[in-house]
Amino acid sequence: MSSTMKALRKVEPGVGLVMCDVPIPKIRANEVLVKVHKRAICGTDLHIWSWDAWSEGRLRLPVTTGHEFYGEIVEIGADVSHYRVGELVTAEMHVVCNQCSLCRTGQAHLCDNVVILGVDGDGIFAEYTAIPEFNLWRVPKGIDPEWAAIYDPFGNAVHTVMAGETIGKSVIVLGGGPIGLMAIAVAKAAGASQVFLSEVSPYRRNLGKKMGADRVINPSEEDFEAVVREETKGQGVDVVLEMSGHPAAIAQGFRVIKKGGRYTLLGIPSKPVTLDFARDLIFPGITLQGINGRRMFETWYQMDAFLVSKRVDLSPMITHRFPMSEFKRAFETGLSGQSGKIILT
Amino acid sequence: MSSTMKALRKVEPGVGLVMCDVPIPKIRANEVLVKVHKRAICGTDLHIWSWDAWSEGRLRLPVTTGHEFYGEIVEIGADVSHYRVGELVTAEMHVVCNQCSLCRTGQAHLCDNVVILGVDGDGIFAEYTAIPEFNLWRVPKGIDPEWAAIYDPFGNAVHTVMAGETIGKSVIVLGGGPIGLMAIAVAKAAGASQVFLSEVSPYRRNLGKKMGADRVINPSEEDFEAVVREETKGQGVDVVLEMSGHPAAIAQGFRVIKKGGRYTLLGIPSKPVTLDFARDLIFPGITLQGINGRRMFETWYQMDAFLVSKRVDLSPMITHRFPMSEFKRAFETGLSGQSGKIILT
Amino acid sequence: MSSTMKALRKVEPGVGLVMCDVPIPKIRANEVLVKVHKRAICGTDLHIWSWDAWSEGRLRLPVTTGHEFYGEIVEIGADVSHYRVGELVTAEMHVVCNQCSLCRTGQAHLCDNVVILGVDGDGIFAEYTAIPEFNLWRVPKGIDPEWAAIYDPFGNAVHTVMAGETIGKSVIVLGGGPIGLMAIAVAKAAGASQVFLSEVSPYRRNLGKKMGADRVINPSEEDFEAVVREETKGQGVDVVLEMSGHPAAIAQGFRVIKKGGRYTLLGIPSKPVTLDFARDLIFPGITLQGINGRRMFETWYQMDAFLVSKRVDLSPMITHRFPMSEFKRAFETGLSGQSGKIILT
Amino acid sequence: MSSTMKALRKVEPGVGLVMCDVPIPKIRANEVLVKVHKRAICGTDLHIWSWDAWSEGRLRLPVTTGHEFYGEIVEIGADVSHYRVGELVTAEMHVVCNQCSLCRTGQAHLCDNVVILGVDGDGIFAEYTAIPEFNLWRVPKGIDPEWAAIYDPFGNAVHTVMAGETIGKSVIVLGGGPIGLMAIAVAKAAGASQVFLSEVSPYRRNLGKKMGADRVINPSEEDFEAVVREETKGQGVDVVLEMSGHPAAIAQGFRVIKKGGRYTLLGIPSKPVTLDFARDLIFPGITLQGINGRRMFETWYQMDAFLVSKRVDLSPMITHRFPMSEFKRAFETGLSGQSGKIILT
Repeated sequence: MSSTMKALRKVEPGVGLVMCDVPIPKIRANEVLVKVHKRAICGTDLHIWSWDAWSEGRLRLPVTTGHEFYGEIVEIGADVSHYRVGELVTAEMHVVCNQCSLCRTGQAHLCDNVVILGVDGDGIFAEYTAIPEFNLWRVPKGIDPEWAAIYDPFGNAVHTVMAGETIGKSVIVLGGGPIGLMAIAVAKAAGASQVFLSEVSPYRRNLGKKMGADRVINPSEEDFEAVVREETKGQGVDVVLEMSGHPAAIAQGFRVIKKGGRYTLLGIPSKPVTLDFARDLIFPGITLQGINGRRMFETWYQMDAFLVSKRVDLSPMITHRFPMSEFKRAFETGLSGQSGKIILT
Repeated sequence: MSSTMKALRKVEPGVGLVMCDVPIPKIRANEVLVKVHKRAICGTDLHIWSWDAWSEGRLRLPVTTGHEFYGEIVEIGADVSHYRVGELVTAEMHVVCNQCSLCRTGQAHLCDNVVILGVDGDGIFAEYTAIPEFNLWRVPKGIDPEWAAIYDPFGNAVHTVMAGETIGKSVIVLGGGPIGLMAIAVAKAAGASQVFLSEVSPYRRNLGKKMGADRVINPSEEDFEAVVREETKGQGVDVVLEMSGHPAAIAQGFRVIKKGGRYTLLGIPSKPVTLDFARDLIFPGITLQGINGRRMFETWYQMDAFLVSKRVDLSPMITHRFPMSEFKRAFETGLSGQSGKIILT
Repeated sequence: MSSTMKALRKVEPGVGLVMCDVPIPKIRANEVLVKVHKRAICGTDLHIWSWDAWSEGRLRLPVTTGHEFYGEIVEIGADVSHYRVGELVTAEMHVVCNQCSLCRTGQAHLCDNVVILGVDGDGIFAEYTAIPEFNLWRVPKGIDPEWAAIYDPFGNAVHTVMAGETIGKSVIVLGGGPIGLMAIAVAKAAGASQVFLSEVSPYRRNLGKKMGADRVINPSEEDFEAVVREETKGQGVDVVLEMSGHPAAIAQGFRVIKKGGRYTLLGIPSKPVTLDFARDLIFPGITLQGINGRRMFETWYQMDAFLVSKRVDLSPMITHRFPMSEFKRAFETGLSGQSGKIILT
Repeated sequence: MSSTMKALRKVEPGVGLVMCDVPIPKIRANEVLVKVHKRAICGTDLHIWSWDAWSEGRLRLPVTTGHEFYGEIVEIGADVSHYRVGELVTAEMHVVCNQCSLCRTGQAHLCDNVVILGVDGDGIFAEYTAIPEFNLWRVPKGIDPEWAAIYDPFGNAVHTVMAGETIGKSVIVLGGGPIGLMAIAVAKAAGASQVFLSEVSPYRRNLGKKMGADRVINPSEEDFEAVVREETKGQGVDVVLEMSGHPAAIAQGFRVIKKGGRYTLLGIPSKPVTLDFARDLIFPGITLQGINGRRMFETWYQMDAFLVSKRVDLSPMITHRFPMSEFKRAFETGLSGQSGKIILT
């Protein structure tokens, strides 16, 4: 094994990433070294590529980016006891402290001391990556390696859907980016009676249909509220899953949610949002939830269950594959909005 | 409209029922009169037919039996405000007091003062029946009338399955009578990752497959525990649904349930059951739940959702139809064990 | 019994109420007639007195106002079966339909067809009032009649506190009006480890101490966030109960809530509120709940339990009593802000 | 520091323990060395002393016993990052794997690979003990060191009480051993409206009163069911906490539990128990729960909250103190049944 590897890194402020030669990571006693087989591009990676305000405030350069992957363990640390060389894995990339009150009460996804690999530390847009044993996830046999590479965003979708009741419920997904698209399939697999997608892009509405939406809505051309009322016999929906971050979509969600309903937020608005608390929340008895990360590791068991039982099929929304060397084309495709999930091999 | 009707009644102690001419019921201000189109035979009706110890202790004769039905409203009482003549309905036949602490805290299915129509009061094995408005359930368009006639036992299945988490869970149903068979389909619709049926009768195992069981087990010929361990990769099941009332089946359930699992009881054992509390409940952290009736009316909305969304198909387990006049053949068929659900038209 | 009675009514738009002679109500078959012994003035009554925009939009005049009371049954309707003349009662004044999907799934407090007596129909600022049997609440022996007269707002406090976990949790109440004051005592009785009150009025902060607050904060003079951080050893609070409706208070709540915390809203803001969804809800995984009314009747049983067990003492915040004839002084006192709860005898 | 220490060990089968000189433990990189200040005797320790069937089947000799303690960190391993020398701690003595599905879904107390220090590995009846960092619990300032020494059994009590709703509920504790006694105080602190203790020993009934029981019952002399019915106005109790393991007590619990109630089991019966599933569980809709260990670490935060807020006072049930050298007298006292909790200093 060579002592250096290729890695896609942010080396200085500004747009883009640079393919570098860097040393293969030395693992610690509680870590394993993984040879990365598949990688996927996250919206976060697009933000880092574009070097937006969030990226500028958060990242310390240089850093190897990327956090969605599938690979094979090629070396194990001295204290690693549950994994061995040759196992196929992905991982939770939020490295948590296991000692704060959040970690110790089932809320590790909100850990006070989290380090996100690929953001706060070196990630997986590289040939090899070092992962703590605690964070590893063994990929079950029969799972498509491309699906294994996107457990991270799939977990966001599962976490959001599963943050309340779904069985026999009507659900609307606002925004058909990759996580929204996966949320459609998850909601169906989780027993939802009806699942709608609201999305302005025809490309993404088409993917929404393929992921199982009972009805896709173009809110820029259709009467959003009227469509939802008609499809639900006037009742509105039990559950709103906000995946767009757009103020107009957020407001629309409140127009169609049933009294006593659940409104779950994953999409990050870039600006403050104005709500009429009395009309939108208090009189109708609405619960508004913010969702972050994946439950460690309830969400991961749920992902396995959905995929192994074939209740969820992620194929339709994995739309592009590129070799790592063509990373520029890959990022341009991601930024175009004309893609589902993009895999780097 | 004639002033009398045919009704199938228990008129004196002993086996069987008698077809009688009785007055058409006079409704009270808060009741409606329903012309019954479809009826179904419940296990309870078989007990009453056979006049077992439970029946002898509970019933006051004479009484018109039967409580599973579908029909049309032909008359409404003076205080009825939400229904009108011509509507197609079924009903919750547990008439509850709405004033005891159980009724007033979402546990009306456990009401201290319940009167069950068809057991404690006149039921629906008749041409007409009187039902309180509070108990009516409007049948959604597109629901097969035969399905509408079995909301009562379907509701037992839904209540049992939905008494805890199901999404992504492995489930075993012990006993393939009609409610067990429906529980298979409900568990699948409610997101279960795997559903097993354990049942000694080949006829019912065959129905179990048609209702969607991933694997049916013959516990009298197969190594029950070994099969479940193999199918679950050694893990055992998350959820046991006990529908048989047989002590051997109950014990088997404890052999395959995961630590922290849910063990839900609907089947009524005819004798006391012996448990090793330490081994079966305390060390493995098991929750054992007794289930009775249907949640009023959460369960009914769930039933509508499962059927309207076509997530549950009840057709395979409705196996026989008879005109009311052939009630003897119908009951004999029910007592034979070689049937799913039997409809009286 | 005379055929007429005194009643405090809104007879035409504008400030104030008028004491009128009106017929004693005729009860329907499912109603009882109650001789009212104690009445209390709600914030809603103050709005109606002042004839604000909400009142103008909602009320159809003339109407007898008032909905918080304690009294004695003096007549029962023909269909009333669980109450008898002479019983001492209060009541849930939200008259609900019992047929909409909210009523039928444990959310009757959000009923689509609610009629609020004292707002949408004649209330209890009168000598007699007619109440449906379904809505009655029998007052347990040993409960102070003045406490019985304020079950309605006490229920708002209990519903808000009990909308999530409280045992061992730190809680802050924002706003020390009567419901906020009661919420302090309820949170303590419900096992909260620490309860804070934030309130600008010295009069109300003083009542807050009497109701059991571990620390009262004057947000106009103290460094609100610093105080909460110090009192909670830097952790912030698990639960925010927003009772003020003030935008500044709402914003402060988000500054001190723990990640994963519960933020429950009862106070009605008069204007839209602007939130930073990413910072306030999504990244910290906050749940924001709107609360309305009282759970029917879980909240009522909880109220009985708190009062009968003497875990909650409502005495300190009942600060004024007036005879009905001095209603003007009573309303002026209520409007002054220098009062807790005001009783009309 | 000397290289050897005194330790109370089981060295061969049979009754009793032996005080030995053994090497002070060498800690691993993820462990700390604790100088033990206070120890407490658990019922498990009494079983080991007496060498009953369970002990014989479970223990591999020799082993240092004891698992309830309070002490000071005197050395930290190389990888320990959240603790430092001088800190005062107790610990969860269930050393879990953090990799099985139970550990990874909030059920670590049911870990498939648990090692209990003091049972499966060396414990704390010694001058020093080695504890993994993951298992440490920092004792808050102001907590009595004797209370800190009994977090383990206190956690059993808290876990049992908190396994369902308690606020405004009536609770009966069956069996007044140390955990039952603590459960009384916890139930009160957790908002229970009424707490009863059933216990045959006058010594323990007296401690039950001191711990806050509203009524203690001597089931061998009083009419158990009649007393509970009278105290609860005929309703029975919402929650049964079974702490005795006695078949007669278990049966009595079912006689007084309300329909829909919670029946939680912590006491280990030495023999199988016979239940009438229909009468005891299914018709009344009872939930029967087995409880084991402490939730890691939700239960520990709850313990801190109860003690720091002074809602729970453990003083009355800590009845005896002995120096380690008088361990024989201490164990004899424990075996006599005439004690609450016994501390070894």
